[in-house]
Amino acid sequence: MHALLDLTLTLSRLPGIGTKSAKRIAYFLLEEPKLAEHLITQIQQVAKEIHSCDTCGAYFDSDACPYCAITRRQAEILCVIERPMDIFAIEALGIFQGRYHVLGGALSPMTGVGPEQLRIDSLKNRITNENIAEIIIATNLNIEGDATAYYLDQILQPFQIKVTRLATGLSAGSYLEYADKESLARSFQDRRIF
Amino acid sequence: MHALLDLTLTLSRLPGIGTKSAKRIAYFLLEEPKLAEHLITQIQQVAKEIHSCDTCGAYFDSDACPYCAITRRQAEILCVIERPMDIFAIEALGIFQGRYHVLGGALSPMTGVGPEQLRIDSLKNRITNENIAEIIIATNLNIEGDATAYYLDQILQPFQIKVTRLATGLSAGSYLEYADKESLARSFQDRRIF
Repeated sequence: MHALLDLTLTLSRLPGIGTKSAKRIAYFLLEEPKLAEHLITQIQQVAKEIHSCDTCGAYFDSDACPYCAITRRQAEILCVIERPMDIFAIEALGIFQGRYHVLGGALSPMTGVGPEQLRIDSLKNRITNENIAEIIIATNLNIEGDATAYYLDQILQPFQIKVTRLATGLSAGSYLEYADKESLARSFQDRRIF
Repeated sequence: MHALLDLTLTLSRLPGIGTKSAKRIAYFLLEEPKLAEHLITQIQQVAKEIHSCDTCGAYFDSDACPYCAITRRQAEILCVIERPMDIFAIEALGIFQGRYHVLGGALSPMTGVGPEQLRIDSLKNRITNENIAEIIIATNLNIEGDATAYYLDQILQPFQIKVTRLATGLSAGSYLEYADKESLARSFQDRRIF
């Protein structure tokens, strides 16, 4: 049955879903037409309602970016993260009052992600245009995240601003998204100058 | 962001997907619009192309049910399974040549599944109309599957036909869908009379 096979293959491309799970979900969607219909509507809704901020790269569904547009946030501190969803992990702490800059990933020569694939030019522009005083690099604590942090520190030297990196209060190899609040909060407080 | 939250909640209702996974997939679908579009088309395709056989309950995408319509299959043996997908596990063995009857689940008083919710009346009709000689009960090897098998054996007594159950060559608590071929094949050969 081609249609089921095709659906199973697509489902197995989603993060965290293996072949067996994908098959199970495909049948489940066949057996639960209402839920399937629901899912379709909501995927379409997400694509329609959620925008990406041209400046910082964050996702939002309101009229303006909740991070860039709010003036009471410290405009001179930028926290650089890999993915938009990393913002929620940081916001949940309630200790960072600056703004964000989403890179769109991390350097990864193996998968063809170089500096040109990341939002680095726009970061440089912001440093100049927005009069940034400090860049907090909050990339993930794995090889790619570390390499990206090191690269950013190098290319940001000419700007002569403070460049800090989240302290490794987070265990090595971990992802921001899954970090416990305590460790993430500590790594924020202990951020060090490069 | 309501749309993302709604999508996350719906995704977490799919089998094998927890809250963290659901969140990850929701963002992934937002970041990969082509894959999201693909997924929608395929879910719709599955709903459109795959039919359920009125007689046996199996899924098929051809003109007629591949199990009921093929005359070389032994018409006098019915294998009773919980879900349509269980058929594929059995067909993959190539040792069963009879026909199928999908119950649509197993008895489960806790979740409100009684005999009326299962395709039991149509099973009784088939036994009479199709002159069935043997019923192989191939429900799952867990509490609900065992209870359903026991119940079926009781209500099928008046028909005075052979009622067998797959041998417990399968480990207790296991699901047909995930069984290794060897154990599933052995349980077919060792099926016992109730």
